[in-house]
Amino acid sequence: MATRKRLSGIDCSIARSLDVIGEWWTPLVLRDIFYGLHRFEEIATDLPIARNVLANRLRTLVDAGLLERRQYGDAPPRHEYHPTPKGEETFAVLLALMAWGDRWANPDDSPPVIVRCRACRSQITPLVACGECGEGLTASTVELRPNHGQGTPRTTVAVGG
Amino acid sequence: MATRKRLSGIDCSIARSLDVIGEWWTPLVLRDIFYGLHRFEEIATDLPIARNVLANRLRTLVDAGLLERRQYGDAPPRHEYHPTPKGEETFAVLLALMAWGDRWANPDDSPPVIVRCRACRSQITPLVACGECGEGLTASTVELRPNHGQGTPRTTVAVGG
Repeated sequence: MATRKRLSGIDCSIARSLDVIGEWWTPLVLRDIFYGLHRFEEIATDLPIARNVLANRLRTLVDAGLLERRQYGDAPPRHEYHPTPKGEETFAVLLALMAWGDRWANPDDSPPVIVRCRACRSQITPLVACGECGEGLTASTVELRPNHGQGTPRTTVAVGG
Repeated sequence: MATRKRLSGIDCSIARSLDVIGEWWTPLVLRDIFYGLHRFEEIATDLPIARNVLANRLRTLVDAGLLERRQYGDAPPRHEYHPTPKGEETFAVLLALMAWGDRWANPDDSPPVIVRCRACRSQITPLVACGECGEGLTASTVELRPNHGQGTPRTTVAVGG
């Protein structure tokens, strides 16, 4: 698909991430797999997605190294889809997306899904934070600058509205 | 668009987030605005995007309350696009996506963009962490359970591959 080729050519890790996981339905397919739905029929039943589109998305995720197929049946051969380490780390991105949606795209006040941290046993809100000091990251607490001397970001000043 | 209507009907904050910011190009349009490109012509020059598509995406983001238009010229009237609080908080999601791409979708070893935390002054990697204890969140450190007694997640056990 021409659009995807163009995106991957942009020297930007957001563009390259979207190139892999930004296709329609793909984040929800990954979500279902994290929810424990590993089989084609389970996902096809759960999401209002055309079967050929689902087959295509799963193939793309396997080809891109985010999912691996594990055979669980013989006649005919059937497979489950499980995340690889590369696929597993999309879970954090989905949590960040979920947290934003809980706050800004939720028609009622209670979130559809409760997130609990196994470390502190609390019901929590996922936070995108500094990996060094733990400070929450916002447009005003972060500075971005281009590393390769070209392309966006055009500015070396802080981002923000 | 039928697909978007269907997504927003799913009781899931990931689906609802995608309904707003999951359209092709939208995350990169937001990225450009965070990078300080606030004018239509600046974004149109920066991204390989059709002008009518860009106009459509900007309109959608304004209508959804993520961007606001600020007039900066009179004859003819011209506008800049600035994030609202709702729009600003997508910045964290973009950082999580960027961090995944830096790690897993980067053709060379150096990230295109350097992220620096203003709080600790370090060059950092954004981390999706527990908002309570600061632990990094992965599929194995988090439990998810449905809050409304229906829909996905189907399982109340820990997610993970």
